[in-house]
Amino acid sequence: MSETKLPLDDAQHADSARALADVLERVSARTFRDELIDAGLLIPTGVDGLYGRSEVFESVVEGINQLVTRMGADQNAEVMRFPPAMNRADFEDSEYLKSFPNLAGTVHSFCGGDREHHRLLKCLEDGEDWMGDQKPTRVVLTPAACYPCYPVVAKRGPLPAEGRTVDVYSYCFRHEPSLDPARMQMFRMREYVRMGTPAQIVAFRQMWIERGKQLVETLALPHWIDLANDPFFGRGGKIVADSQRAQELKFELLIPIESEEKPTACLSFNYHMDHFGEIWKFRTEDGEIAHTGCVGFGMERTTLAMFRHHGLDVAQWPASVREALWGAR
Amino acid sequence: MSETKLPLDDAQHADSARALADVLERVSARTFRDELIDAGLLIPTGVDGLYGRSEVFESVVEGINQLVTRMGADQNAEVMRFPPAMNRADFEDSEYLKSFPNLAGTVHSFCGGDREHHRLLKCLEDGEDWMGDQKPTRVVLTPAACYPCYPVVAKRGPLPAEGRTVDVYSYCFRHEPSLDPARMQMFRMREYVRMGTPAQIVAFRQMWIERGKQLVETLALPHWIDLANDPFFGRGGKIVADSQRAQELKFELLIPIESEEKPTACLSFNYHMDHFGEIWKFRTEDGEIAHTGCVGFGMERTTLAMFRHHGLDVAQWPASVREALWGAR
Repeated sequence: MSETKLPLDDAQHADSARALADVLERVSARTFRDELIDAGLLIPTGVDGLYGRSEVFESVVEGINQLVTRMGADQNAEVMRFPPAMNRADFEDSEYLKSFPNLAGTVHSFCGGDREHHRLLKCLEDGEDWMGDQKPTRVVLTPAACYPCYPVVAKRGPLPAEGRTVDVYSYCFRHEPSLDPARMQMFRMREYVRMGTPAQIVAFRQMWIERGKQLVETLALPHWIDLANDPFFGRGGKIVADSQRAQELKFELLIPIESEEKPTACLSFNYHMDHFGEIWKFRTEDGEIAHTGCVGFGMERTTLAMFRHHGLDVAQWPASVREALWGAR
Repeated sequence: MSETKLPLDDAQHADSARALADVLERVSARTFRDELIDAGLLIPTGVDGLYGRSEVFESVVEGINQLVTRMGADQNAEVMRFPPAMNRADFEDSEYLKSFPNLAGTVHSFCGGDREHHRLLKCLEDGEDWMGDQKPTRVVLTPAACYPCYPVVAKRGPLPAEGRTVDVYSYCFRHEPSLDPARMQMFRMREYVRMGTPAQIVAFRQMWIERGKQLVETLALPHWIDLANDPFFGRGGKIVADSQRAQELKFELLIPIESEEKPTACLSFNYHMDHFGEIWKFRTEDGEIAHTGCVGFGMERTTLAMFRHHGLDVAQWPASVREALWGAR
């Protein structure tokens, strides 16, 4: 069937402009990613969003990590370091699957005997699906660094009057293969997590929005703060996202990495209200359901922003930035 | 049916003694684990072998890590830091599934739409299996820190005459839930990986056996070196293990943690011969298939050995050990 081409109307023009912008962005994403790979900073593994890191890349991550530690030294935070996986029961309870089922990663293992093992190896050899006897384990990859700490703290009983602050840092997993190096499947998140009364959480969050701005100013990165726009799953997702914005539950510190128009959220400032408190029966000293909040530092994203804005050669970075990251070395 | 009890013969005596020893070991495993948890060094998550770590625990891990770095400073090693997961295709190629199918962890994600999402949430709510729409991703948890580096280095073409040495460090996963704290499901492994001629690998391994002994002597830990006894899967597993021992492919540095009789492998010294070279078509400068080997440091195991032998209070550790870990602080 042949089609008569009609002149485009305004909406169509807008659509095709957007499509073109998307293509250009993909091309530009590919370019920055290729630059990082060519410079040896990221090591490709053949899976989009899964990279090895060079020594230099890691030294920037660690420099930022230590800046965050110095900035939070007055927080009296309890350091907890979890592996990059958590108890599946806690994960199920967290309701993450309501919002982002597509991003989660469950861990499965082979549970067969000799016969099933032979079948598995035969399938592998023949290039067929060998996953038939992989069964879910009791372990799920951590979707955000703070998730494992809530049930742990809740088990200790009511919070003290001053509440609690926890310091967590781990690799996280999100299943969203992408050519944008700022959208990795495995990346590190450092967080301070606050548990207490609504007033304590709101004050904590406001303070960390200010400190977050200070941090990236120290790193000489362009930035602004905005309400978050999380990609909640499914047809109902937009409504949830709108509600999150209307209630001002999550702010992000944005830095242009892939594009000026779609800057990347490098830090986030979250108020969960009583969401986790209700789930894990957290209480404040006076018996109310505890509220929680957290500030999250996207370590790879902030590091990538540094390479984007200061160049791929750290020796050429501004002296003040080098000093902030590594001291007078 | 009633049974007449006959006097036990020697073999039966030996059997029941072994059974009793096993029970005692489980009790003792439980005890050391509980001590670590009570001291706040390990944080239970409700899954055996999956723990959070305290700040003090992490400071020991990092102290050992830096000792290893200083010990390997002359190795001219390329630092590569991979996330705790790897490309599934590379994992399949590695033949890990031949030997330890039961230990591997594959990562699965939800791939449905709105309808499947509703079903998932309904299953969760009803306490039923919700994993029906979890499909394998292209990502598998790293079984040993060195696995991701072989295909990366192989892609660079033939090795230089002096071979290559790579420095890797990551969380690894093994599906073996256990009450023994030295048998975790997620733990960190630091490694130096050597690629080159057979003579280069053998010399490297011999040198690191000596350095490994030096390291644990610095840490004032009792230890000995022995051939490894890996738990290869299935009926054929024993034959493979015997062959590995007969060829002296893997040595371990053992330290008693849970028991004197069954000490724990804390470091390992491996010669893979041409196994990885064949798979990823590694070649030496003169066109031969490259051989590979590695020394692996079990970071949690070595740390646990410290708490076992020097006590749970690091302030009471011998001055020489504290100095080695943290300098004169």
